[in-house]
Amino acid sequence: MSLRHKTQRVVFFGDSITEQGAKPGGYIPRMKEALTQKGLANDYDLIGAGVGGNKVYDLYLRMDDDVLAQNPDIVFIYIGVNDVWHKTSFGTGTDIDKFEKFYTAIINKLLDKHIRLILCSPAVIGEKNDFTNQQDGDLNGYSQVIRNLAQKFHCGLVDLREIFHTYELKNNPGNKAFGILTLDRVHLNDAGNQLVADKMLEALLAK
Amino acid sequence: MSLRHKTQRVVFFGDSITEQGAKPGGYIPRMKEALTQKGLANDYDLIGAGVGGNKVYDLYLRMDDDVLAQNPDIVFIYIGVNDVWHKTSFGTGTDIDKFEKFYTAIINKLLDKHIRLILCSPAVIGEKNDFTNQQDGDLNGYSQVIRNLAQKFHCGLVDLREIFHTYELKNNPGNKAFGILTLDRVHLNDAGNQLVADKMLEALLAK
Amino acid sequence: MSLRHKTQRVVFFGDSITEQGAKPGGYIPRMKEALTQKGLANDYDLIGAGVGGNKVYDLYLRMDDDVLAQNPDIVFIYIGVNDVWHKTSFGTGTDIDKFEKFYTAIINKLLDKHIRLILCSPAVIGEKNDFTNQQDGDLNGYSQVIRNLAQKFHCGLVDLREIFHTYELKNNPGNKAFGILTLDRVHLNDAGNQLVADKMLEALLAK
Amino acid sequence: MSLRHKTQRVVFFGDSITEQGAKPGGYIPRMKEALTQKGLANDYDLIGAGVGGNKVYDLYLRMDDDVLAQNPDIVFIYIGVNDVWHKTSFGTGTDIDKFEKFYTAIINKLLDKHIRLILCSPAVIGEKNDFTNQQDGDLNGYSQVIRNLAQKFHCGLVDLREIFHTYELKNNPGNKAFGILTLDRVHLNDAGNQLVADKMLEALLAK
Repeated sequence: MSLRHKTQRVVFFGDSITEQGAKPGGYIPRMKEALTQKGLANDYDLIGAGVGGNKVYDLYLRMDDDVLAQNPDIVFIYIGVNDVWHKTSFGTGTDIDKFEKFYTAIINKLLDKHIRLILCSPAVIGEKNDFTNQQDGDLNGYSQVIRNLAQKFHCGLVDLREIFHTYELKNNPGNKAFGILTLDRVHLNDAGNQLVADKMLEALLAK
Repeated sequence: MSLRHKTQRVVFFGDSITEQGAKPGGYIPRMKEALTQKGLANDYDLIGAGVGGNKVYDLYLRMDDDVLAQNPDIVFIYIGVNDVWHKTSFGTGTDIDKFEKFYTAIINKLLDKHIRLILCSPAVIGEKNDFTNQQDGDLNGYSQVIRNLAQKFHCGLVDLREIFHTYELKNNPGNKAFGILTLDRVHLNDAGNQLVADKMLEALLAK
Repeated sequence: MSLRHKTQRVVFFGDSITEQGAKPGGYIPRMKEALTQKGLANDYDLIGAGVGGNKVYDLYLRMDDDVLAQNPDIVFIYIGVNDVWHKTSFGTGTDIDKFEKFYTAIINKLLDKHIRLILCSPAVIGEKNDFTNQQDGDLNGYSQVIRNLAQKFHCGLVDLREIFHTYELKNNPGNKAFGILTLDRVHLNDAGNQLVADKMLEALLAK
Repeated sequence: MSLRHKTQRVVFFGDSITEQGAKPGGYIPRMKEALTQKGLANDYDLIGAGVGGNKVYDLYLRMDDDVLAQNPDIVFIYIGVNDVWHKTSFGTGTDIDKFEKFYTAIINKLLDKHIRLILCSPAVIGEKNDFTNQQDGDLNGYSQVIRNLAQKFHCGLVDLREIFHTYELKNNPGNKAFGILTLDRVHLNDAGNQLVADKMLEALLAK
């Protein structure tokens, strides 16, 4: 049976959310567990490649060292929160057109290597469900860029922006800014990690 | 008949949108025209007090000179766009809690003089109707502050944020960033000035 | 002798640097100690009124409650770091002309109460001594505003910006960003608290 | 004689200052004129490649199309103003460490093609000569990065930051913000274009 397929190497390429997602309790170990329960433990090797504070051009700059050097079959790209957030926290966010340019450059280089790509939209900076979080406009806009790129390049898509919004409408009646899916408005709590794990697994196993 | 009431002095206190709204074609002349058509030309004296680039604390600083010195009976307060916009265009926007504090200080001082107040929420920075304009999150949040203040202090409210959004959903099928109600994403075109004039007049004449 | 003068009430009005300066080891206890050694313990009552994150308009908003309610004879005003810093850390710094307006409003109100004022320029955000710290331009500019106000209104001046720069040129040969007078580029370490205490005491006792 | 050397192709790679510098009256035509006067008109072909609003990573993204496609022998790199300025004008400046990374990537790629490089530090955003222009700290810091890169990679250097500062100290006794070497605090007037032309020519002809 093992002759029929090799273990697929899956790299999770992103920022601090991915960095934390690779730790115990994070969405990557949760995906491993789910794969084991499905008897697929040997089919996929899940590899975290998240670095705190990363924006799209940081991914671009370290793509060779941190992704291609791993010889991946599949790459999840989960970026965008800092591109938006750093506009007001450091004055060094990423213009939306440059976001698209660097994202496109990453996609092109990885597709050239025949890597299967699954793009993720940035989930939340603040969990209020009525679009009153400061960065909601930009997060909606940058997510739209990612949706368009997924369609244009025939990549998979885990639309976390949409998934989280739907979840918050149902499960955040008090319109809280954090504590439903995040610890601190951005980084995932247990429920957030489980939701991301479920949706990423679904995308990974979809064909 | 004219013995029964004096002319009401109405000051429009705001930023560049109000400054331009006082010019020919702006919403203030449009309101005058509508009052004339209703035979109410002598009942209201409409006075523009808008200054380009103003934020809530600019209103606070010039309130004595530009509003109280006019002995107004009624004041429209229309502020908030620059408090949000200047965060990324100059790095000098207004924190939402300070926005509320200065707005409250203005309300308190004007109510002390028994002036009738009508608050306006900030309409738009970009006319896209799916909450993908960069500042939509903040505009929604700051508008909510203004709605709460109107309720708390029993002021009138012209909820331009809501009014414009409803209008854009109906009349902006192409999801354009400007050209429907604004010239440039912020400042009003003819249709925008007419819409604001209609809604402000409604609020002025409501009791 | 004690009949000839009452204890002078001295309020230190500022941001987190002043808030921390009121704690054990801070410049305010160090000034008390120095006054005691000079036999002046009963001549001055030193009162901290610093709040973390404050900008000039925060001082303005809480001046009645936190300063005038103390019936001070003398007020040190030490503000400006956050007015500059928050431009890039939150997008909500203070425009230099508004900084001057609110600072002037504070001075006018306190001088009306015949309070003796001693103004302090903002020391540092980063201790590098060759003007390569990100905010050096703005700190120099805002300090110049304060120097001009001190002269215009005949207030005392503790020019911490100049004092720190001179100190760094002598004592920071490695051009470090922190660790000479600050813990973290902004907040004072022991040497910083001592330097501020020395210079403020000098200004307090000058006539 | 023409057998002994071919015409050297010189590309000026930069932002709006370079874009304007290629126009009549700009520093590039001024350099051509000076070369003609020296009898060197046929030795150098000067080619403008400036695009308004560019930051270091914009140069990186268009390097193949706009520089390498020109087969240059020599490239002047003149970038950095927008990397600093956009921090507060759009919230999308470039972090200093990323500035260095992308600058280094550009240098490496051009040196691989055996192109002679001459780096320029960013001159001014505001001409006040006492380091009170808002961005002076950052401009000093980013210029230091460029000086270090020039040394590390054995590139030529036109240290416009230093050259302009020296000029302003002599020729701007009124400490004006613009009008000495710039039209508007940033873009060069006649004197500015001539100064840049003189210094770049000096560097071009130096060996």
